[in-house]
This record gives sequence, structure tokens and C-alpha cells, in this order.
Amino acid sequence: MRIGAIEAGGTKFVCGIGNDRGEIAESISFPTGDPQTTLGRVIAYFKEKQADAIGIGSFGPIDIRKDSPTYGYVTTTPKPGWGNFDFLGTLRREFPVPFGWDTDVNAAAFGEATWGAARGLGSCLYYTVGTGVGIGVYSEGKLVHGLIHPEGGHVLTRRHPDDDFAGACPFHGDCLEGMASGPALEKRWQVKGHELPADHPAWEIEAFYLAQSIAGAILLLSPEKVILGGGVMQQAQLYPLIREAVKRNLNGYLNAGAILEQIDDYIVPPGLGQQAGLCGALALGLSALRNQA
Amino acid sequence: MRIGAIEAGGTKFVCGIGNDRGEIAESISFPTGDPQTTLGRVIAYFKEKQADAIGIGSFGPIDIRKDSPTYGYVTTTPKPGWGNFDFLGTLRREFPVPFGWDTDVNAAAFGEATWGAARGLGSCLYYTVGTGVGIGVYSEGKLVHGLIHPEGGHVLTRRHPDDDFAGACPFHGDCLEGMASGPALEKRWQVKGHELPADHPAWEIEAFYLAQSIAGAILLLSPEKVILGGGVMQQAQLYPLIREAVKRNLNGYLNAGAILEQIDDYIVPPGLGQQAGLCGALALGLSALRNQA
Repeated sequence: MRIGAIEAGGTKFVCGIGNDRGEIAESISFPTGDPQTTLGRVIAYFKEKQADAIGIGSFGPIDIRKDSPTYGYVTTTPKPGWGNFDFLGTLRREFPVPFGWDTDVNAAAFGEATWGAARGLGSCLYYTVGTGVGIGVYSEGKLVHGLIHPEGGHVLTRRHPDDDFAGACPFHGDCLEGMASGPALEKRWQVKGHELPADHPAWEIEAFYLAQSIAGAILLLSPEKVILGGGVMQQAQLYPLIREAVKRNLNGYLNAGAILEQIDDYIVPPGLGQQAGLCGALALGLSALRNQA
Repeated sequence: MRIGAIEAGGTKFVCGIGNDRGEIAESISFPTGDPQTTLGRVIAYFKEKQADAIGIGSFGPIDIRKDSPTYGYVTTTPKPGWGNFDFLGTLRREFPVPFGWDTDVNAAAFGEATWGAARGLGSCLYYTVGTGVGIGVYSEGKLVHGLIHPEGGHVLTRRHPDDDFAGACPFHGDCLEGMASGPALEKRWQVKGHELPADHPAWEIEAFYLAQSIAGAILLLSPEKVILGGGVMQQAQLYPLIREAVKRNLNGYLNAGAILEQIDDYIVPPGLGQQAGLCGALALGLSALRNQA
């Protein structure tokens, strides 16, 4: 079995071929350009691969409502050329195989639930903290779609008492993404995040915002695992700061051993590491193949 | 078909008998006392009713993990006698029929998705705003459980600029429930909520807190309907205030007609009115019967 996987990011695309054990046999990566050029490269890559199915985890917002006339489209992105673009249809015309299609963060959540840190569990949240903040939601054994799809990176949080940064979100100013994304970090401190030392106060402030959102999502959804990925989360000192802040926020209200005693195993990095996104797309492709069979 | 329904609240119990169209044929109500007395009355009521199944929507926290040794228990409530009490088991020993068992707010969400304001939809949120604030979550055609169950009433919100009330939640002080429950309203304004005139500034502040939580939940979960019930929501002037505040919070970020153009039909009172809780329990009982068949 050969499953194609496309991790379609706003900055770069990764295409690969894997199997039903979540193993990636080969992959390529290239910068995201205009849709024609970018999908041209995707099509050229898969032309010789004989994939039995292809899964796509895409930057958004995208249309994932199967009964919608624009199912498979990238919708309202400001990214040049990509607004209202038929991403899935363009590939379907080239490859007559089952396709999986979801957001990049939902894909990563699904990959983690299939082969990673949430393997065997019925629910998890997948945060990516990088260029933006995105949250994938897997609940009761299903990816959550609903009216559009989860866009949890834009929730409002309380302000850290030592932080007077105005926020970097063009829609909401100081929402979670506006305060905690990689670009927000850089704008606030005037250096790239990875250039800040591990004991810089920036990380306590970063953890403060992420933990508020995580505690809120735990209260609303009661996930069995919370997985934090993306470029900013390469700063390993964030994990213990976030765990402690989540516990402070919840203040013993949720009587769950996973939170009260084993939080180191509850709020975790991706089990699939840097391959969480690509493996997530692989899991979507595999699922599409199985649902068709 | 005769389905039993139990709306088990912290203040009062309602028991009834209904059918598979969501119609309640008869019901009784009594104050919640200690578990033995209360369930004694429940058992006496159903003894003569020949119910084919019984659904329970209960105050919490409760154990709804089917593989748990304390499945069916009320767990850590401070309510005298109810902590670690085997609610479901006590009834199962009396009635050899299928039982449905979930939180009061999940039950109400399920009832609304079966016969009410979210009929035919795959997702909805059900808020109850009364003695506390609770949020039931129905997503992708399933009630959300996870690690424990949703407890979204305790999320943190930003403070209203004109509000210096300390908050009434013993765990978190000024979380949503601490700022927006019926007792919080009463403590802040020193009168019962229903004694405040409809144009009192209290309602704008109340809407401010609820709308923040609703906007956050919409971002995280993308529900197809948001239903607001409970005693405080009897103040009909709250709905337009909440809808406007939700739109202000989202600031056009979610490109969905349901929110941008038809919010009056998106954030709504329960379609089942005051019977949302009891009909929810009925829907749980019906589902238990169908799953067993």
C-alpha cells in the first residue's frame, strides 16, 4: 500500500509517500508559491508514485463541508492567488484515487491519534504555535468540523500583567495568535524567538497565554491529550512553564489524575515529532482509502 | 414505546414519561434532597410506569466513562451525601431496562439536536445560565465526553471595564460562572436578577461575559448552533446583547453567513423551551433503547 501525503503550509509544502504504519518512505519540500506553480510541483511529484490514495492537510481557511459546492477550496485567505481556489479539485482531475482533505492542524491531530502521542485515545487537541496559532480538534473518535472548522488560535485571553504589547493579529489585535505566535514574539522582543535565552521572561509570558487557552479548551472539551507542536514549541523550556500555568488556571477544579498528577504525560510534544503534519496527511489518505473500500 | 426521563438537578428533580417524538405525556417535580430520599421518590414514580428505557441527565461532576469502575456515579460534588454516590447503579438494580446517562447539559444539547433548535444538525452547544454556568457539547453527531466531561462554565474571561465584582466561584473567583451565574448577578447587584429592569447596565455586563465564552467556543469548535437556556436566559433582552457582542468579538474573522448575516437564528433560546432538560433525558433513554436493539 502506497499512500500519498501533502502537508500544505502557507510557507512551504511537503509531499511524501508512506504506508499504513505511518512510515514515510520518501518526501520532498518546496516553498509555497502561487497555486498553479505549487500544485504543478505537487502533481509532477505524484505522477510517478502510483499512490493508492492521497491525504491533504492544508492551511486555511478551507471548505471541508462535503455537501458544499466549494468543498475542497481554499476560501478567504489573503495569500495571493489562493483565495477561492479549488485545491482538491485540481488534484482530483489528475489522480483518480480517494482523497482525504482537512485542515493542517486537524490532520496533525489525526496523525497523532493514529500513530503518535494520542494513539489509541478517542480525543486530543493539537496546537501548532508558529507563524500563527492553530488548534486541531479530535473528539469522540472524529475530527471536528462543524460550521467551518476549528479556528481556536483566535480566542481572547487575559493580558499578562507585565506585558504591554499591543498584539499582532489584524482581526483581533491581542487574541491568542496576536500575542503568542512566532511573529508576535519577534515583534514584542525585537529579536527572533530562538535568539532569546531559555531563561528570558519572554517564555513565562508566552506560556501564560498558551496555558490560558489550553485550560479553557480542557474545560470545554475534556481532551485525553494535549499536544503542542510548531516552531515556537521547539523551545523545550515552554512545556514545564505551560503545564504549571495550566494547573494554576484550573486550580484543582478538574479531579483527573492525568492533570493533577501526570500532567507531564498529558501536555506533550508531538509523538511524531517534525513529521506530525506529514503523517497527519498520510492518516487522512489512509482513512479515505479505508472508507472507500 | 414508553421512555422514562430524569432531569436530575442540584436543586430539583423532574421525572417524566415520553415517546420517540419527544412528547412528554406526564411528569412530576420535587426538590433534591439526600440521595436515598430523592432516588426513593424516583423509584416510586417509575415503579408503575413500565418504561422501556430510562434516560438520566444529571448534575455533576459525574462519571460517564463506560470502562470506569465508578461509571454512573456522582463524583466530587460538595452536595451532602451525593459525593461518590452510585446514582445509575441504584436505579439499575430496580429497573432491568437500558439506561442513558450523561450530564444535564449534554442531555439538553442532545435533546435540542434530536427535536429542538439544532434538529438535523451534526453539532450544537447548549449553555445553561442559572445557579451555575454549564455547557453541553454535541459535535460530529456525538456528545463529547473525553477525559471527564465538558466543564466549560469555568473558563476565564476578560473583565468588563465597568465591573469591579470580585467573582463568586470558589475555585476561580472571576471565571465565567463566577461572573455570570444567577448567584453572581445577585451578589454583584444585591437584588435577584429578575428584579433588575431590562435596561439596567447589568445585562450588558452579563452579555459581555457570556459572549466572550461563546465566541471562544465558536472559534474552537465551529458549532452549527448555539443554544442558551437556564433561568438567567429568561431575560429575553440578553439575546440581542449577546449576539452583538459575539459579532464584535469575532470581528468578521469567521466568514460564515450564519454568523455574519443570520446570527438571530444562530444564537437562540432552546427550541424545547423549559422542557429542554427533560426532553434531553428522554433522548438519552431513546438512544439507549435503540443502541441495545
